Amino acid sequence: MGVYDLSKEMVIGIDIGGTNTKFGLVNHRGSIFDKGDIKTDIFPTIEEYVDALYTSLQPLVEKFETDYKLKGIGVGAPNGNYYTGAIEYAPNLPWKGTINIADLIGKKFGVPCTLTNDANAAAMGEMMYGAARGMKDFIMITLGTGVGSGIVCNGQVVYGHDGFAGELGHIIVRPGGRKHYSTGAHGSLEAYCSATGITVTAKKLRAENPDSLLNEIPEEQLDSKAVFEAANKGDEIAKEVFRYSGQILGEALANFIMFSSPEAIILFGGVIKAGDYIMKPTREHMEKNLLPIFQNKVKLVFSELKEADAAILGASALVWEK
Amino acid sequence: MGVYDLSKEMVIGIDIGGTNTKFGLVNHRGSIFDKGDIKTDIFPTIEEYVDALYTSLQPLVEKFETDYKLKGIGVGAPNGNYYTGAIEYAPNLPWKGTINIADLIGKKFGVPCTLTNDANAAAMGEMMYGAARGMKDFIMITLGTGVGSGIVCNGQVVYGHDGFAGELGHIIVRPGGRKHYSTGAHGSLEAYCSATGITVTAKKLRAENPDSLLNEIPEEQLDSKAVFEAANKGDEIAKEVFRYSGQILGEALANFIMFSSPEAIILFGGVIKAGDYIMKPTREHMEKNLLPIFQNKVKLVFSELKEADAAILGASALVWEK
Repeated sequence: MGVYDLSKEMVIGIDIGGTNTKFGLVNHRGSIFDKGDIKTDIFPTIEEYVDALYTSLQPLVEKFETDYKLKGIGVGAPNGNYYTGAIEYAPNLPWKGTINIADLIGKKFGVPCTLTNDANAAAMGEMMYGAARGMKDFIMITLGTGVGSGIVCNGQVVYGHDGFAGELGHIIVRPGGRKHYSTGAHGSLEAYCSATGITVTAKKLRAENPDSLLNEIPEEQLDSKAVFEAANKGDEIAKEVFRYSGQILGEALANFIMFSSPEAIILFGGVIKAGDYIMKPTREHMEKNLLPIFQNKVKLVFSELKEADAAILGASALVWEK
Repeated sequence: MGVYDLSKEMVIGIDIGGTNTKFGLVNHRGSIFDKGDIKTDIFPTIEEYVDALYTSLQPLVEKFETDYKLKGIGVGAPNGNYYTGAIEYAPNLPWKGTINIADLIGKKFGVPCTLTNDANAAAMGEMMYGAARGMKDFIMITLGTGVGSGIVCNGQVVYGHDGFAGELGHIIVRPGGRKHYSTGAHGSLEAYCSATGITVTAKKLRAENPDSLLNEIPEEQLDSKAVFEAANKGDEIAKEVFRYSGQILGEALANFIMFSSPEAIILFGGVIKAGDYIMKPTREHMEKNLLPIFQNKVKLVFSELKEADAAILGASALVWEK
């Protein structure tokens, strides 16, 4: 009589990244029985990739299937479309065009397979196992190399008409502002508040402030973490990097709140390790830009999932939800 | 055997405005059997107001109830909360605090009563009878004295955690920009793209351009319609008023699309009478600010409901939907 008595089912969560693919066998409480990974970018065709996934995963499935029935497979992938089950033109994956990956994986394993993009999967994971348990309305923002988002309204992930809803990183927050390093858009949230954007701000501010400690950091090591360390040493310019980023993030969050009036905004990703340096201005400018009816009631909280497992758990949540 | 054979039910739609209240008896196809109105602001207590509503409406109900059963009542009102059935602190209504109006009306008439705010009711009306028939994902924007909005995702109005979702008029589109005439916020959509905001832009631009025809319009007559007439006479500054407003509206719509990826944006209200003067720049800047995956696929259309009936129809749709 173990901890998993509540259910005799398990699911597989697969997180497809540009370089690595991580997977795990998960129960309905979010406990990971076993996990593993394979390279993503060494397989020239999607068929070879799915074969490799099967070869790695099937022994784990067999190990547990005496006690737990495999219910299905959930996959989180960049540009993964929930409606079509296809990865559509993902710039960082080796396979081009439209890849019907949910269908291929489902047939290979003989169980239903559900796909969504990585940010929506993260939101599902928080709703199923994490900080959003019991919530019907929340927004998940991932602040990593880029800015991703998953929106939940009335207990359902917002996919929109075509499956592409929730691209909050690309919302314009400073019309005519900083050019995005990849899309070329001017003034998008991601251009300022991703780890990449914060590094740009740090480079700009240290150039203007030759006395800042930031100038002691070699160019290739100048990242969000290095700025955080300089801030901890008392460097006012390093603090200003986070204050400026937090202001823009807070203004954006206020706009998001006036759109869908969530119970909470859940933040995830490397950038939030800067703690109060970024969260204090974020919260301040969020509240300042809200209509009074929204003020002081939306929780701003961190993800409760371990960073290493969050993507697997998010993908696995797709199966339970379905 | 008339046109209403499909159903033997009718509903009442009530639109509560600050000055007047309009109501109508509506069938499931959006045909209005009969309609009427009473003043809103002459009743010092909500009980007197509900009594007056009953006195005016009951004869109409009796006239039709031989053939049609009254299914329920839908009410659209400023600050109307769908969850609680209460109007909460509406600045333009005579009754202060929290008014449990759905409960009062429901008891008086002996049928279920459902409340929402006027902008959400408008969205429901379009979904039930108008331009959004058959759509599961769309955003309705009303461009009148203010800017209102109703958001539909996956076939459901987005109410959010507390019932206040969809305040898109108050989203900040120009950080640090023009001060809102009522909220005091800087740079909100409503401050630029409401009829009120467009008048502000007209005043600003005519002050800077003494040769503009706009300077021939008396101050108290300078409104969206007067600017439209000046544009029709070829005045470039009048055209610039709409171009500027359209640019800001288009940028805002692009952000909304990247949030919920709607099939269409449906526009309603006096401002859209300026036609291409405002719609061309709106569409141009909307497309320009979208990620490629969203470009050239979101319809930008006008409401298909008659302006005089739209609010009654919207309120009535609440009952059919429920």
